[in-house]
Amino acid sequence: MRSPAPAAALVEVGRRFNSRGWVLGTSGNFSVVVSREPLRLAMTRSGAHKGMLTAEDVVDVDGSGSAVAARAARPSAEALLHVEIVRARGSGAVLHTHSLWSTLLSDRHGESDGLAISGFEMLKGLNGVTTHEHREWLPILENDQDIPRLARQVRHVLDQHPACHGFLLRRHGLYTWGATLDEAERHVEIFEFLLEVVGRRP
Amino acid sequence: MRSPAPAAALVEVGRRFNSRGWVLGTSGNFSVVVSREPLRLAMTRSGAHKGMLTAEDVVDVDGSGSAVAARAARPSAEALLHVEIVRARGSGAVLHTHSLWSTLLSDRHGESDGLAISGFEMLKGLNGVTTHEHREWLPILENDQDIPRLARQVRHVLDQHPACHGFLLRRHGLYTWGATLDEAERHVEIFEFLLEVVGRRP
Amino acid sequence: MRSPAPAAALVEVGRRFNSRGWVLGTSGNFSVVVSREPLRLAMTRSGAHKGMLTAEDVVDVDGSGSAVAARAARPSAEALLHVEIVRARGSGAVLHTHSLWSTLLSDRHGESDGLAISGFEMLKGLNGVTTHEHREWLPILENDQDIPRLARQVRHVLDQHPACHGFLLRRHGLYTWGATLDEAERHVEIFEFLLEVVGRRP
Amino acid sequence: MRSPAPAAALVEVGRRFNSRGWVLGTSGNFSVVVSREPLRLAMTRSGAHKGMLTAEDVVDVDGSGSAVAARAARPSAEALLHVEIVRARGSGAVLHTHSLWSTLLSDRHGESDGLAISGFEMLKGLNGVTTHEHREWLPILENDQDIPRLARQVRHVLDQHPACHGFLLRRHGLYTWGATLDEAERHVEIFEFLLEVVGRRP
Repeated sequence: MRSPAPAAALVEVGRRFNSRGWVLGTSGNFSVVVSREPLRLAMTRSGAHKGMLTAEDVVDVDGSGSAVAARAARPSAEALLHVEIVRARGSGAVLHTHSLWSTLLSDRHGESDGLAISGFEMLKGLNGVTTHEHREWLPILENDQDIPRLARQVRHVLDQHPACHGFLLRRHGLYTWGATLDEAERHVEIFEFLLEVVGRRP
Repeated sequence: MRSPAPAAALVEVGRRFNSRGWVLGTSGNFSVVVSREPLRLAMTRSGAHKGMLTAEDVVDVDGSGSAVAARAARPSAEALLHVEIVRARGSGAVLHTHSLWSTLLSDRHGESDGLAISGFEMLKGLNGVTTHEHREWLPILENDQDIPRLARQVRHVLDQHPACHGFLLRRHGLYTWGATLDEAERHVEIFEFLLEVVGRRP
Repeated sequence: MRSPAPAAALVEVGRRFNSRGWVLGTSGNFSVVVSREPLRLAMTRSGAHKGMLTAEDVVDVDGSGSAVAARAARPSAEALLHVEIVRARGSGAVLHTHSLWSTLLSDRHGESDGLAISGFEMLKGLNGVTTHEHREWLPILENDQDIPRLARQVRHVLDQHPACHGFLLRRHGLYTWGATLDEAERHVEIFEFLLEVVGRRP
Repeated sequence: MRSPAPAAALVEVGRRFNSRGWVLGTSGNFSVVVSREPLRLAMTRSGAHKGMLTAEDVVDVDGSGSAVAARAARPSAEALLHVEIVRARGSGAVLHTHSLWSTLLSDRHGESDGLAISGFEMLKGLNGVTTHEHREWLPILENDQDIPRLARQVRHVLDQHPACHGFLLRRHGLYTWGATLDEAERHVEIFEFLLEVVGRRP
């Protein structure tokens, strides 16, 4: 059973992200945890345009990343990555965007394991960060169409970097999360801003 | 006879593209196939601003690119290119934009025959593409005010590159298409995104 | 007496230009000819924000650039430039924007007398231009706070370049015009697009 | 006691700034003076997203930067900077944004004490400036999480530069002000425009 409130909230997030060009061409996927025991996520279905979502585009997903209801729409292929993040971090929401700057920066820094961002006041928008002197390490993972294998990589990276607030998939996009959907959305805005700053620096 | 549904859909596409700056100054043109036998396209008329279309700005066009009705508004001068694409690809919709990045990239790569794009997750938004390792060849044609001659060039390029999902006219813009209008619009978003990524890469 | 229809149309132009960032901070000014004999322009008043215009922000101006009504709001200080353009070109509307790219390009090319733009399909959006092979010369005038002196410079430049569709004031912005307000707005969109293309070219 | 009118005005400013990307991720803070004797500012609370403000997100602050009402929401941590500006300049409103270009320019010029901007017509949008030949000195202060210490720095810089219309905090953002909220908003637009121009200059 889908919870109407999370679906309505995801619809609004989609409109806002679309207006900034972060989810063009049906890209991106979003989820909100609706139950912990058993684990259930309200997640955007595969192939929906995030700027024109309706509540029907949100499906309930279980802890294996599969739709709960037999006849439900297919959830995003990357559902398993959301599940890994929720399990590793205890998050209440996970957001994934395909923006220009996450694509460009993950391309430019793709040969290294990640990207350090420090010195900016905007870092304080990340949960628990209290000073611009914070150094945020944003891991970059190689992109992979084998989602179970990529999910294992995600788990490994989250283990290795317990303080990170997000990661990039190379030439693909940004994953971030939060205790609530509002916090996850704030993290997207913070990272997108910082990636553009870093990307435009000489 | 114009079908009201395609016209209403083209009006909405125009508003969305205009908000992104892809159809400034009455540029661009759109069509939807409304009948195959005989071939009929609902197409934006010449000289209409795509951000402020009404249903009256959409006219029915036949397989020669001419308005079906004697007293109809003049269809876009490039109607014949739409017809060539529909015939070669069996598409249900054709969209043409004049964006910044299609203009810049077709200028920068204009001396070669086209532009290869590969390695990006966003490529999977193109119909039939299942991996970021796909290599999309985006042909570039020399611009030409002689539309019948340009239409022959288009036919030739579509024959030569049976897998391509779009092409650029040099210093002019992007043509892409899809089985449905939704798919064609998704292809525009995917190409515009990828062209900006490629254009901003160092 | 102010004509309500031109004022309402200028309000809408202001909203659209503001959404693109072309008239930030009360910059820019717009006019429409409401009578030729005697010459009367409906013009935005000085100091109004163009994104939040109301009909009260539009005042009638005579052939000397002064408000017709004794107690009217003060018209834009640059009213006299609009009058010169209307007289030299017989235009029905004049639009002036302070955009990023008109500022940047008029700065970069300010040592020369102007800027040539050619080879782009978008040039066909300028009235009377039928091919991308057209070469548009966009004159650049030195900025000047002495408006009568600047008006004489404008007249001189319009005489010298009878085919030009607009001009730049150095580190200031774009002036363009049209037979109708719609045409003038189209010319703004065309020039803003082309200036950004030229400005982003390597 | 909060004045409803200033709160409603701040809500609208927040929407406009958010649409331009100047206050992403709950960044930025705004205030309006509602009383001089004793000094009272209506100020955005800490942690509110500026694009989705409601009147409840605006709290009354006294001359020490603390909430007037015992059970009010916590005002922005930077309330004391607003108080310093209001005292030094007699302003009626103070606005602080975290934009891309204020971050980039304060980073690039951070080793010097500030940034000079001159020669642009847009400078005339700053209160009292009557010519593009004006030279605006925009001081840059080192960012600091110790707000009382930073407030003393702000007071010192305002004393040293009695003619400046704003200042930058390094890798943090822009502060500007005005006699009214409208003027302060106009100053934000002028500075954001000029910073982008300067930042994109070769």
